[in-house]
Amino acid sequence: MTETLRVAVIGAGRMGADHIQRLSKRIHGAEVAAVVDVDLARAQAAVEGIPGAVALADADEALNNGDVNAVLIATPGFLHEDILLKALARDIPILCEKPLTPDAESAWKIVQAEEKLGHKRIQVGFMRRFDAEYAALGQVIRDHELGELLMLHHQHRNPTTPPGFTNEMLINDSVVHEFDAIRFFTGEEITSVQVRLGKATKNAPAGQHDPQHVLVETESGVLADVEIFVNAKFGYEVATQASFEDGIVSIGGDKGPYTRAAGRWGGNVTPGFEERFGAAYDVEIQSWVDAALRGEIGGPTAWDGYATAACCEAGVEAQKNGEKVAVKLNARPALYS
Amino acid sequence: MTETLRVAVIGAGRMGADHIQRLSKRIHGAEVAAVVDVDLARAQAAVEGIPGAVALADADEALNNGDVNAVLIATPGFLHEDILLKALARDIPILCEKPLTPDAESAWKIVQAEEKLGHKRIQVGFMRRFDAEYAALGQVIRDHELGELLMLHHQHRNPTTPPGFTNEMLINDSVVHEFDAIRFFTGEEITSVQVRLGKATKNAPAGQHDPQHVLVETESGVLADVEIFVNAKFGYEVATQASFEDGIVSIGGDKGPYTRAAGRWGGNVTPGFEERFGAAYDVEIQSWVDAALRGEIGGPTAWDGYATAACCEAGVEAQKNGEKVAVKLNARPALYS
Amino acid sequence: MTETLRVAVIGAGRMGADHIQRLSKRIHGAEVAAVVDVDLARAQAAVEGIPGAVALADADEALNNGDVNAVLIATPGFLHEDILLKALARDIPILCEKPLTPDAESAWKIVQAEEKLGHKRIQVGFMRRFDAEYAALGQVIRDHELGELLMLHHQHRNPTTPPGFTNEMLINDSVVHEFDAIRFFTGEEITSVQVRLGKATKNAPAGQHDPQHVLVETESGVLADVEIFVNAKFGYEVATQASFEDGIVSIGGDKGPYTRAAGRWGGNVTPGFEERFGAAYDVEIQSWVDAALRGEIGGPTAWDGYATAACCEAGVEAQKNGEKVAVKLNARPALYS
Amino acid sequence: MTETLRVAVIGAGRMGADHIQRLSKRIHGAEVAAVVDVDLARAQAAVEGIPGAVALADADEALNNGDVNAVLIATPGFLHEDILLKALARDIPILCEKPLTPDAESAWKIVQAEEKLGHKRIQVGFMRRFDAEYAALGQVIRDHELGELLMLHHQHRNPTTPPGFTNEMLINDSVVHEFDAIRFFTGEEITSVQVRLGKATKNAPAGQHDPQHVLVETESGVLADVEIFVNAKFGYEVATQASFEDGIVSIGGDKGPYTRAAGRWGGNVTPGFEERFGAAYDVEIQSWVDAALRGEIGGPTAWDGYATAACCEAGVEAQKNGEKVAVKLNARPALYS
Repeated sequence: MTETLRVAVIGAGRMGADHIQRLSKRIHGAEVAAVVDVDLARAQAAVEGIPGAVALADADEALNNGDVNAVLIATPGFLHEDILLKALARDIPILCEKPLTPDAESAWKIVQAEEKLGHKRIQVGFMRRFDAEYAALGQVIRDHELGELLMLHHQHRNPTTPPGFTNEMLINDSVVHEFDAIRFFTGEEITSVQVRLGKATKNAPAGQHDPQHVLVETESGVLADVEIFVNAKFGYEVATQASFEDGIVSIGGDKGPYTRAAGRWGGNVTPGFEERFGAAYDVEIQSWVDAALRGEIGGPTAWDGYATAACCEAGVEAQKNGEKVAVKLNARPALYS
Repeated sequence: MTETLRVAVIGAGRMGADHIQRLSKRIHGAEVAAVVDVDLARAQAAVEGIPGAVALADADEALNNGDVNAVLIATPGFLHEDILLKALARDIPILCEKPLTPDAESAWKIVQAEEKLGHKRIQVGFMRRFDAEYAALGQVIRDHELGELLMLHHQHRNPTTPPGFTNEMLINDSVVHEFDAIRFFTGEEITSVQVRLGKATKNAPAGQHDPQHVLVETESGVLADVEIFVNAKFGYEVATQASFEDGIVSIGGDKGPYTRAAGRWGGNVTPGFEERFGAAYDVEIQSWVDAALRGEIGGPTAWDGYATAACCEAGVEAQKNGEKVAVKLNARPALYS
Repeated sequence: MTETLRVAVIGAGRMGADHIQRLSKRIHGAEVAAVVDVDLARAQAAVEGIPGAVALADADEALNNGDVNAVLIATPGFLHEDILLKALARDIPILCEKPLTPDAESAWKIVQAEEKLGHKRIQVGFMRRFDAEYAALGQVIRDHELGELLMLHHQHRNPTTPPGFTNEMLINDSVVHEFDAIRFFTGEEITSVQVRLGKATKNAPAGQHDPQHVLVETESGVLADVEIFVNAKFGYEVATQASFEDGIVSIGGDKGPYTRAAGRWGGNVTPGFEERFGAAYDVEIQSWVDAALRGEIGGPTAWDGYATAACCEAGVEAQKNGEKVAVKLNARPALYS
Repeated sequence: MTETLRVAVIGAGRMGADHIQRLSKRIHGAEVAAVVDVDLARAQAAVEGIPGAVALADADEALNNGDVNAVLIATPGFLHEDILLKALARDIPILCEKPLTPDAESAWKIVQAEEKLGHKRIQVGFMRRFDAEYAALGQVIRDHELGELLMLHHQHRNPTTPPGFTNEMLINDSVVHEFDAIRFFTGEEITSVQVRLGKATKNAPAGQHDPQHVLVETESGVLADVEIFVNAKFGYEVATQASFEDGIVSIGGDKGPYTRAAGRWGGNVTPGFEERFGAAYDVEIQSWVDAALRGEIGGPTAWDGYATAACCEAGVEAQKNGEKVAVKLNARPALYS
């Protein structure tokens, strides 16, 4: 019988609870050993019906639990650094939801700690790389099937934002996905970010300028842009149109049953990221589990987490000054080359 | 300067009024010279704002008018025979809305009268042949681009029916278009018709069984079927899916702006045949006018009108007995070979 | 820790090998304990890299193996009856690929054996019920969201057939899926089957008439039809268009990246059932495993296997006589009501 | 009988020849009276088969011809100014293909000349306004059907460019259409233009940087962008995606028969602007003819021609400096308010 990953899930919020279901009901080779949440009641609710899983209020206790041999971090980003360093110290497989950490400086510390450990233990939760259409587009690019990639147009639209969602979060929590996607598609680092603020929707909360138009360049000069629109009301959408020398490829189109009724043709818009990327999360977590059981990682690295953090810092500065802001990166350690 | 077709439009109902606008506002080389309607007020309303057009209550008066050199017949079908014979006697270009006449016997008389005249003067208003997608599919078939055509699946759906629309009219007024389309696509005659009656909608008027599933075979054994659904509520739809040896071609898909709003993606269903086939009517009438100015016809012949009438007779019988009913046709006169 | 299903997979052909990967790599709560194939080398190849799984040439040996607590039958249909009866005798969870058995008489024996056992142990592999779009359409029907369901139009197209695929197999192996789908969608039994044979493709092997048009009626009079076209060359397609009183719903549309290149817009057709229904297989097997661990079944029953076998018998007779053939069913045992 | 527009078509190149066919074969109420081309043989070829039309080498001769009562200008843009002024002097209806003139200064002279004349005689050939989907999107915007318009994303892709097509022409001849479209959609003037030059295709001729990403802002802050890609090889595409407060609307999607063959689903990309906008040209010219016969114009004004020329000047400057360049406009004369 195969060995089993006994995972401590840190954070039992929306994302954590989703992963707990995944690990305990659909993923082969993994079980939930512990759920940690500062709100112990929430941890207890999350382990209900999951045999062999304990609810804890303290991450240290989970990391020191002998029954635990892997950790999935799903807390808010500002709590990641401490847990990451402790889990690295224990040298166990780590899946860390994005962002790796909230800023480039702290992310760089994680990169250095892992480099010192000497092997990769951290996989970062940029799950779009595991979406079938993202994978297919990435393949077209790498195969030069339609010549060189020239431009990438992205739409990232959410129906609404949770309370307290700021202008900065619009870059750090939303556009961060496109930063990683652009890096994934091109295999290049992002060199600059510009942000255009124009007419704003009345549906955004006070203090949030929505939508925004984010302009990005990569090392070889691929021009990318992102319409980030987080109070778009109509539903959830993540789409990309890629312009090549010899053709155009679009992903993220609408799906599902096609209905004609009451004078309209069409179907239901995906309501949220769980529905849009549910399958990608499954593939991501299975990839992590399979790799972890072999002593490897199966997805984006801590370097990817660091590099996107640097993009976010440039993006937030660009939001404020309206100018094209260069992205500053330290030299890439050998471990990630 | 080119000669001009001076058209008497017989019948100023929905179809006639539409053609009057077309001839007097959009078609090159034609003018409306007269509008005839038993309801003179309706004829008068129809000529308003059309310089040089007279309103009449009597078709004979129009046919005897020296200013008239062509006729477009848009009255109910049971009035066609008399006008057709008189217009043939005057030997002027005739566009006759479908059906040529309501039954195969009277249609055969028209065919014989035209044969005696010795040249084709009658064009029958099967306008679908002028639809760009119908034309494209016809071309794929004739070019054997995807091998032999094997099956044709049709959907013909109307939102609702006018008062007094009977089971027989469902064949004679609606499926008649598919009978012509199948003949147009295959270039063959239809050899048999079967009609399946199953579960019926509550939205049909009393006495009407709706929808119905009509099964058709052609000379070479192409199997066609038609879902005729005349109280389909959601809107108007005319679509065909053709199965070839080497592929599948569909026409009649939904069109227009693509909207995402309120949790739905999609667009507006075409509300009726004017919107769906408006451009085809323009092309049809221009083709007729151009051909008429050359002394020819530019579309379906009186034989097409006769042959579809024979299909309709078989279809109505098949509705009643549930069996496969053979279509009976006289030998095709040389004029139409 | 949860109990684990230790599955003996009987048959290591295309289908069996696929399920072995699924059970050992993606499904939570299951492991492959044994693989049985009369070709022992094939069984050995299938267990390679799967810790704890043994390769056997004899099904009895697997069923008597104490480490085995469930069985998945993926042999050709004519071998099912014997294994089913033995597995029922052991009273362990059984997932039996369709068909249950090749004919209604032997299927009825299985139904009776399970009825005698007194509880359901057999789940039949009609995996389409687990496809997200099938499930969504089923929901629309059950909710009467668009009024009553009136018609169902199916297209079932394969690129090509394996050697030895006969006319009868076209019903028994292919249309059998639509028989189950129609029963699933309507929640009714099928009452009659008619088969139309028209123009045939040159691409079919000798003795096979392809495509065929299969006409079906259900208890309440829903009219269904199936274009079965097993040498359609262009790729694989399984689609349904459902006509309701208040609208039309289509499922099975094309998916994937949308490309414009070399004068064409579009994407790749699904090449085969593994790609089209791969996710449905995963959901089906997970549903079976979850239910089996609770002592239940999680999908179609032996009765469903029996009833579709009766439809197939009527279908094969209808292929030969061209008439509408009634489907004969025994009374439904209480266990399945 | 209605009066007829007797049109002198100046320029018998690709565009002119197309309009000659249109006016003499499809448009009601107009005839071609004269065709002028410096290459007289080309003019003679263009009038072949058109009764009553003369071929001339000199525009003055046509303008002085008593049989001519309207003019359609289809010469290269640098020749427009002279003909426009002479035709204004004759006070006859003018349809001038875009651009009005090649630069804002000369366009302003035309505006002033027409203002002095005191009524509008010039309609500019921005035919996209007459495309059914453009019209529909314009209506959604004006009706505030989905709240305020916030962003406009445009794709303008040509398969290839004619010899001698320069970077400047990419703005002046191609993006000029989007400048007008953005003004048409928003009902606002454009206030600034920025141009991004990134990775370029190897398929562009020397000296041409292709594709380019053009960024535009309007008076109220609507952010628009245009991917202009004039050597895109795959075919022709003109599409817009509009982001509103309450939803998203896309126009310009692919159309036509939907085929599945050889492992691909899809259809044919529109090969060029004639196919994409042929119907819009017909509507545009009919609108001009109808309005001209009433003594009015039926489309974009000389002001629209001037304002887009000013946008083009800003665009060409922006191409060179990479900065956001303000668009400078004179005050709008009362005639155009």
